[in-house]
Amino acid sequence: MTGPTRMRLEIAEQPAAVAATLEALGAPVAELVAELRARSIASVVLIARGSSDHAAVYGRYLLEGRCGLVTALAAPSLYTTYAAPVDLRHALAIGVSQSGETPEIVAALRYAAGRGALTACITNAGGSAIARAVEHPLVTRAGDERSVAATKTFTAQLAAFASLAAALGASTLARGLASLPDLMTETIAIAEAPAALAAATLVDDDAAVCVARGFSYAVALEAALKLKETAAIWAEGFSSADLRHGPTAAVTSATPALVLHAGGVFADDLERLEGELRARGARVVSIGPGRRLGTATPPCEELAPFTLVLPAQLLAERLARLRGYDPDHPRGLRKVTETH
Amino acid sequence: MTGPTRMRLEIAEQPAAVAATLEALGAPVAELVAELRARSIASVVLIARGSSDHAAVYGRYLLEGRCGLVTALAAPSLYTTYAAPVDLRHALAIGVSQSGETPEIVAALRYAAGRGALTACITNAGGSAIARAVEHPLVTRAGDERSVAATKTFTAQLAAFASLAAALGASTLARGLASLPDLMTETIAIAEAPAALAAATLVDDDAAVCVARGFSYAVALEAALKLKETAAIWAEGFSSADLRHGPTAAVTSATPALVLHAGGVFADDLERLEGELRARGARVVSIGPGRRLGTATPPCEELAPFTLVLPAQLLAERLARLRGYDPDHPRGLRKVTETH
Repeated sequence: MTGPTRMRLEIAEQPAAVAATLEALGAPVAELVAELRARSIASVVLIARGSSDHAAVYGRYLLEGRCGLVTALAAPSLYTTYAAPVDLRHALAIGVSQSGETPEIVAALRYAAGRGALTACITNAGGSAIARAVEHPLVTRAGDERSVAATKTFTAQLAAFASLAAALGASTLARGLASLPDLMTETIAIAEAPAALAAATLVDDDAAVCVARGFSYAVALEAALKLKETAAIWAEGFSSADLRHGPTAAVTSATPALVLHAGGVFADDLERLEGELRARGARVVSIGPGRRLGTATPPCEELAPFTLVLPAQLLAERLARLRGYDPDHPRGLRKVTETH
Repeated sequence: MTGPTRMRLEIAEQPAAVAATLEALGAPVAELVAELRARSIASVVLIARGSSDHAAVYGRYLLEGRCGLVTALAAPSLYTTYAAPVDLRHALAIGVSQSGETPEIVAALRYAAGRGALTACITNAGGSAIARAVEHPLVTRAGDERSVAATKTFTAQLAAFASLAAALGASTLARGLASLPDLMTETIAIAEAPAALAAATLVDDDAAVCVARGFSYAVALEAALKLKETAAIWAEGFSSADLRHGPTAAVTSATPALVLHAGGVFADDLERLEGELRARGARVVSIGPGRRLGTATPPCEELAPFTLVLPAQLLAERLARLRGYDPDHPRGLRKVTETH
C-alpha cells in the first residue's frame, strides 16, 4: 500500500467542495437570475458529456420540475456538426465541463450564442475556454481534481445547479442547502465500511444495474459510469420505469443491482422495484438512509443526490482496487476528453 | 423447430409496415404541419419509454437538426408526478407508444395539454387511450405485433417521424423516403446469414456495447435494448463521443462491440472508433454497407437507421434462440408496460 488513492482523497473533499461552491456562487447566480428575468428566458439547453452530463440531468429535473423552465439536454452534434437551424433567442444555454476544455462543448456553446441564446457555464476552471466563451461563468470551487474519475467536481456541479434553482425560487431546496456539507461528511463515515464489504461481494461481476427515479435518476447514471470507468464493470443506470420497459428481462441471479432510495414521492416505487429484482434473483445493494449502504437523511428528495452518490463512489473506488485497477488512471482515459 | 419465431416474421414485415405507414400518414401529417404553422409552434416535447423512446431520439435529431424545432425528450415523471410548472403554449407534445396504453405516457400528454401544448401521438393502435387523448393521432400501419420485442412498430415509428420531418421541409429526407421499403427488403436478404454467423460468436457473452453517432444514435440504443430484452445480454448503446467520455475504460478483450456505420459526416469518426476498439482488443461486429453485417446503401445518413436496425434485430433474435430464450416472450415483460 502506498496510501489512499487520489479518488478516495477527493471523495472525502466533497463536503468542503460543496460548501465552497455554494458560498462562491451566491453573487454570480444572482446576476444570472436577474438577466434571465430581464430577458424573459423560458427555456434552457444543457450541453455536456460524461459525468457533467449526469449533473445536467439533475439540473434538468430542478430547472424544469421546480422552476418551470422547459429544459432540454442538448445533443451536441446537432449544434457542432449538423448546424440545427434553431431559434434560441428566449433560451439559456449552459455548458457543463469540469475542465472547461472539451472542444465540442465550447463549440456547441458558441453555436448556441450565434443562434441568440444567453450563455452560461458550470466549470471548475475559472480561466478555461468555456469560462471565456460565455456571458455568465459559474465557477465551482472543488479545488484541483487529479483523479481522472470525477467525484468532487461532480457534486460541485450538482451544487451549482441547486444554487441556481434555489435562486429561481425553489424554496424547499433553498432551505436544505446549508445542511449538505455536514450530511455528506456524516454519510462518508456511515458508508465507508459497508461499501468495502459490498465491494468484496461484487469482485467477480462483469455487469450491474443502478436504479433510481426522479431527482436521483442522475445518481443512477453517475454510479454506473463510475463502475464502468474505474472498475471495468458494465454497469448501466436506469430510471425504475425504463428498467421495466425491457431491460429487466436481462436481470438474472448473476446481476448485482444498486437501488438508490431517495425517499419522496417515488419511495414506494423503488421499494417495489427492489422486491421485483430480488424475486428475479438479483443481488440487491440497497443504498439510502438505514439501508445496507447507509447515508444520512437528506432534507428533501431534491437534495438526496448529494448523499446517495457517496456510497456509490466509495464502492466503485474499492471495487476498482480489488479488481486490480488504478481508479485514478482508468485505461484509455485522460482528464480532458478531446471529443469534437 | 416449430417454425420461425414471431419476432423473425415481424422483422420481415418491416418493409411493408414502413410503406403502409408512409402512405397512411400523408394526410394526417399535413394537417398537423398546417396547425404547427398556424400556431407558431417553435418547440417539441417527445414523451416515450423503451423502444418508443429510441424512436423519439431519432425524431429529435430530425425535428431539431433538420427542421429547426427545439426538441426535448420529456422526463415523464416531471409531468405526471412533480407537476412541473412549465408553459407549453408554443410547444407540440408528441407521445410515442406502440400499444397506446402505457398509463404514464397518456397521463403525461394530458398534463402537457393542460399546460397549453398542442398534442399529437405516434401509435400503432388507432382506438387506443393515447390516440383518444390527443388532437393529432398519427397511426402507424405495422399491423398486429405479437412478439413482445418491438421490431416493425419501431421502424413504423421512425417512418412517422421521417414523414413529419419531410412535410416540415427536410427535402433530402423527402426524396429518399420512397426507396426505403425496397432497401429494407434488400438488407434483410443481405444480413440474415452473416447475422446468424455473428450470433454464434457471441453466444457466451454477457455484455456488449453498441455505438453510432448522429441520426443513427437511436439505433445504437435500440440494438442494445433488443439484445438485453431478448438475449439477456447487458448491452448498452452509446454515441461515439459518450463512449470516449469514460465507458471506453470498461472495454476489454471480453467485450463485443457493434459499430453502426451510417456514412455521412461522422463516417470517419466511426471508422476511427472501430480502430480504437480493435486496438483495445474488443471483438468488433461492423454493421453497414459492405461491412461484416451488410446493409443496402441508404439514400442519405438521415435515413440510415431504417437499414442499420435490421441486422441488429436479426442478430438479437438469433442470439436469443442460441442462448435458450424465447425472443417472443422475454422473461418478466408484457406487451403493454404498466408504468405510472
